Amino acid sequence: MAPTHPLAALRADEITAASKLIRSLWPAEAKFQFKTVTLEEPPKALALAVLEAEHAGKSLPNVPRKVLVNYYLRNTNKFHEAIVNLSSGRVERNVRLGANVHGAGDGAEIIAVEKLALEHPDVKAEIAKLQLPEGAVVVCDPWIYGADGVNDDDRMWQCYLYTRDTANSSELDSCHYAHPLPISPVISTADMKLVRIDILPTGADNMIKPLGPIHIRPANEYIPEYQQLRTDLKPLNVVQPEGASFTVKNEGTSSIVAWQKWHMRVSFNQREGMVLHDIRYDNRPLFYRASLSDMNIPYADPRHPYHKKSAFDLGDVGAGLMANDLQLGCDCLGSIYYLSSVLTDDEGAPIEMPNVVCIHEQDAGIGWKHTNYRTMRAAVVRRRELVLQSIITVANYEYILAFIFDQTGAMEYEVRATGILSTQPIDDGVDVPFGTRVHPGVLAVHHQHIFSLRVDPHLDGSAKNRLVYEEAHAMPRSDFNPHGTGYEVHETVVSKAGGLDIDPFANRTFKIQNVASRNPINGKPVAYKIHIPAFQPMLADKQSFNYRRAEFADKAVYVVRNNSATDSRALVSDELYSGGKYTNQSRGDAGVRTWSKRGDSVVDEDIVVFVQFGLNHVPRIEDFPVMPVEIIKVGFKPVNFFDRNPALDVPPSVQAVNKSVGLNGEVEAKVGEDGKVESCCTKEPTAKL
Amino acid sequence: MAPTHPLAALRADEITAASKLIRSLWPAEAKFQFKTVTLEEPPKALALAVLEAEHAGKSLPNVPRKVLVNYYLRNTNKFHEAIVNLSSGRVERNVRLGANVHGAGDGAEIIAVEKLALEHPDVKAEIAKLQLPEGAVVVCDPWIYGADGVNDDDRMWQCYLYTRDTANSSELDSCHYAHPLPISPVISTADMKLVRIDILPTGADNMIKPLGPIHIRPANEYIPEYQQLRTDLKPLNVVQPEGASFTVKNEGTSSIVAWQKWHMRVSFNQREGMVLHDIRYDNRPLFYRASLSDMNIPYADPRHPYHKKSAFDLGDVGAGLMANDLQLGCDCLGSIYYLSSVLTDDEGAPIEMPNVVCIHEQDAGIGWKHTNYRTMRAAVVRRRELVLQSIITVANYEYILAFIFDQTGAMEYEVRATGILSTQPIDDGVDVPFGTRVHPGVLAVHHQHIFSLRVDPHLDGSAKNRLVYEEAHAMPRSDFNPHGTGYEVHETVVSKAGGLDIDPFANRTFKIQNVASRNPINGKPVAYKIHIPAFQPMLADKQSFNYRRAEFADKAVYVVRNNSATDSRALVSDELYSGGKYTNQSRGDAGVRTWSKRGDSVVDEDIVVFVQFGLNHVPRIEDFPVMPVEIIKVGFKPVNFFDRNPALDVPPSVQAVNKSVGLNGEVEAKVGEDGKVESCCTKEPTAKL
Repeated sequence: MAPTHPLAALRADEITAASKLIRSLWPAEAKFQFKTVTLEEPPKALALAVLEAEHAGKSLPNVPRKVLVNYYLRNTNKFHEAIVNLSSGRVERNVRLGANVHGAGDGAEIIAVEKLALEHPDVKAEIAKLQLPEGAVVVCDPWIYGADGVNDDDRMWQCYLYTRDTANSSELDSCHYAHPLPISPVISTADMKLVRIDILPTGADNMIKPLGPIHIRPANEYIPEYQQLRTDLKPLNVVQPEGASFTVKNEGTSSIVAWQKWHMRVSFNQREGMVLHDIRYDNRPLFYRASLSDMNIPYADPRHPYHKKSAFDLGDVGAGLMANDLQLGCDCLGSIYYLSSVLTDDEGAPIEMPNVVCIHEQDAGIGWKHTNYRTMRAAVVRRRELVLQSIITVANYEYILAFIFDQTGAMEYEVRATGILSTQPIDDGVDVPFGTRVHPGVLAVHHQHIFSLRVDPHLDGSAKNRLVYEEAHAMPRSDFNPHGTGYEVHETVVSKAGGLDIDPFANRTFKIQNVASRNPINGKPVAYKIHIPAFQPMLADKQSFNYRRAEFADKAVYVVRNNSATDSRALVSDELYSGGKYTNQSRGDAGVRTWSKRGDSVVDEDIVVFVQFGLNHVPRIEDFPVMPVEIIKVGFKPVNFFDRNPALDVPPSVQAVNKSVGLNGEVEAKVGEDGKVESCCTKEPTAKL
Repeated sequence: MAPTHPLAALRADEITAASKLIRSLWPAEAKFQFKTVTLEEPPKALALAVLEAEHAGKSLPNVPRKVLVNYYLRNTNKFHEAIVNLSSGRVERNVRLGANVHGAGDGAEIIAVEKLALEHPDVKAEIAKLQLPEGAVVVCDPWIYGADGVNDDDRMWQCYLYTRDTANSSELDSCHYAHPLPISPVISTADMKLVRIDILPTGADNMIKPLGPIHIRPANEYIPEYQQLRTDLKPLNVVQPEGASFTVKNEGTSSIVAWQKWHMRVSFNQREGMVLHDIRYDNRPLFYRASLSDMNIPYADPRHPYHKKSAFDLGDVGAGLMANDLQLGCDCLGSIYYLSSVLTDDEGAPIEMPNVVCIHEQDAGIGWKHTNYRTMRAAVVRRRELVLQSIITVANYEYILAFIFDQTGAMEYEVRATGILSTQPIDDGVDVPFGTRVHPGVLAVHHQHIFSLRVDPHLDGSAKNRLVYEEAHAMPRSDFNPHGTGYEVHETVVSKAGGLDIDPFANRTFKIQNVASRNPINGKPVAYKIHIPAFQPMLADKQSFNYRRAEFADKAVYVVRNNSATDSRALVSDELYSGGKYTNQSRGDAGVRTWSKRGDSVVDEDIVVFVQFGLNHVPRIEDFPVMPVEIIKVGFKPVNFFDRNPALDVPPSVQAVNKSVGLNGEVEAKVGEDGKVESCCTKEPTAKL
């Protein structure tokens, strides 16, 4: 195994060593609840020196290997942040964090909270009032408590209760979201005690009705054995007879992926999941670092306790911790390489996370085409893409998260939102303007998904970049524009750190530029433009905790100076997460909006760009009991970075390679009859579905 | 062959019969230039009766077979519109159209104009001033003349001239767009004469410089033999070992395509290209008719004659006429069925148009997934799509146009813009705010692509539909919303015909509803929502000819009443094309904005919806010499139309069917080395690229 790269995630032995060093600070009988044991990345300047040596084939400079540790003394509210220097074997920092700074949830804790809530006699007494059928199984979904400033200094979980289908209680995978109960226990984590039991409003207003016998609803299952499955979907296989076009140099806790002139280092951590460093095309640096920074999902129901449903899935739990173990043939199609990872459990011990990233190629239709109508010669290439994908399960919901690279120097970040809507009980016949009834007695409340992608550009090898936006505006009438048809594109340089909106009516387009590197043909600065799909910023009002906490959620773009460039004592981890380093029950004033208030100049400086995008999910009944993917993509495309179409050198799309099958001619009648094909390319039939 | 369906395109013999009937109206020596001989569709009410009988398995009612014919008396400006009734053998209408109503271009005419422009001695004399190298080959791109109201009553072509690479003049497929010349002849079509020669501005202002020796520029070729092709792209094949999942019932000039509960009738005509009728899901009608209505591409350069570059590719020439003959293994991947068509030449004779539509399935990633974290059971299905694709070549540019259907009842219309930028000469060192230098001496001017998709809804079997839009707005603070987090979604009914904007900040979402059909679970009207990507409406000012002509280009959505429902004498063809029936050199006041001014009520009426979308193309140097696809999609998704996720019954994604190949394990090292895979699923190597 190669030596661990300074940007690679922690190895299992490093995790063990770091938590051991933390334990050594305390008496032997101390009990710990570790929340994070993760790489504290070296400052960018140091890391760039490493990358320079790496690409020059020189030995890498010595970089201290540091670890960010967050932990509680178990069963207390004493939450700590520590920096462990593994190179020196010293704990460089170990501070108890202030009031209202809380650690994220973890798997063991969530299971413990579920158990406690379901077994508490007071909860059982409330459930008894519902007179559930014999054998009914109650299920508990603990939710991050959120924040409203009302008696919420303690760290708590708000639990939402459901039953499995009471007519089929033995079905462990029954969709309990079709059977919400109006009872919501609250558990505090410091002492793992029941704080109170909230009874939920089920009408159109905020009245709380006394509990009584519950109306039993039909099941609504998503698992296949409860469906009459389609029988007319024929298999579709992706075959790469000569193998994949990419290479993976697996170095343990990071890997170098190379494909079609792209190069990147892939690692994986607890909070962000997949992280890319040192993204290059044709050996020209593009981005020093790219990752999902956080996401926020505020819900529309203003009634207690629903008004606090506002999840930060990365900050509150961790995209790495919730990553799926991806299965061959299920989660990707074609020739797949899997990356695995090591994360940390609540005892500070390493846990294996197998197959958290899958890498594969996909065909994405035509890449470019032109037919010369004079000669009738067509030139056409297909568009091949490389996909690096993770899938996370956040209790009810899932997100399919992928970086996608193409042959034109473009990078996309794709989110597919799927999984199950978080539901709540509603009385029959009631309609509310903040949710949709998706099943009898079941309300799915509107919610926003606001994603924040962090991109640290390094265009053409310089950290000195700027953010500009261009807009297209009509020219005024003049002698130059006598017919009123002209329009112009103007560029505005963003001078100070801050947030910016989209403006589709002006065709506002954000670009990251390196003005020190100019296009050899047209003299324009090399740039990457950012394609941001239209999105509605957070709707909660500016005084609300939702707004104050999700500091990225009001603007499509934030730009700030890299904190490690301006403050040599700053931790890189302090400004990786646009909603703040500690989002659980956070009070705000700790994310990218706050950082941008430093008023730093961001012109030809070491800048970081946060791109926000998302959707306002107004549920359809078609989104239940499991939701078809909603797909959102952010794109980064070269603008005057190359000197011509970078995909000109993609080999032509030809039948000798593509081996498509024509269904016309001999087989036309058969296609017309039953969809079967027989031709020289037909393979032996595989197993029927 | 089945009898021709009343909605099917004209057969070859019908084309011949119709043009013969037109010829019979005139003296035998009359010469004709036919512009259109195409089906005049029956009024919707009549067509619906046909569809009802068809789906009931009854014999179809008798519907007169009518033909829309446009023709000139050759070498005159006498342009006619005629309706031929083939059932009765009578010409029902034959009128000479008024001043400033002109016919579209056709292939033969374009070739003739090129020849005339290049061979005219006056043009040759101007070209001589450029002192082109020995053997230089000049190429002519005739452009639709556009309109500015200045001496443009006659129908004309504006010709732009280029050379092939003068160092390689024998290369017939040299990209001449890298070598624009500053000379632009104008040809009138009535007499096929040279009207004048425009000399083009090449600086930043509108000064015209005297012609002199031209600066010879390097070549910039797109065809593969001039590239150093990538050698590391391995083949990727899509294999359907049991055949395709769709069936095609080919009835000659229309076909019934059925796939995964979808049903539609596909036909193809000269102007719109592919047209879909009777689109159903699970035998529930969704749309009576869907097609691309027109597109407009206005350019930003305000200087004569460039200010008149504003193409209507459907109205000015025809998406059908420009359709590519699609090739197996080049334009699609997998198992492909091709549809062919018959159109009309300028003599009114039928011309075969082979392989104008390709039909295939594609895998589109995960369709939905959920993992129960308590049992760790994952349920996942893939998303299969059916693609019906045409590709059109509009001189320099191409559009890849596709209807895409999925397994959740959703329909998409996808446009991929590719091909070559229309270029013009520019002096060295000059930058202009309305274009990008993409090659030495070559300016690619900014331009808007504004597409207009026409959808005639028939949700759940009723023509009585309404258009609504919903918006999400913050709730004011109140006792009900004490924390300022709540938000609501409100629906507004569009009462009168007219145009509407997008509003991303309000999450404005348009929906087509049938209020007479209610969701059985939540009582909401069945609906389809329209996903429209953010787009900038036309920038040309409201007094400009560009604006007045492209009546669809100012609003994302237009809704009108179906003209054949309100006026029994109306022709269906009068209101199919949102920029007007005759766009070539049109003067405006003839498209959807004008129709909407009737002020018709559109609530629970027979409505037609036009969806506009597009992009403002600010060229990058990466878009030359051929442009990577820009992809834009409009989506139509069911909202409370079904009673749960319609894709619940898609069989699970499993390895036994998907036959993916794992690259880890045994082959890990090999992948790390050279990307080769060897596993039990590996096929014999195919030919190397």
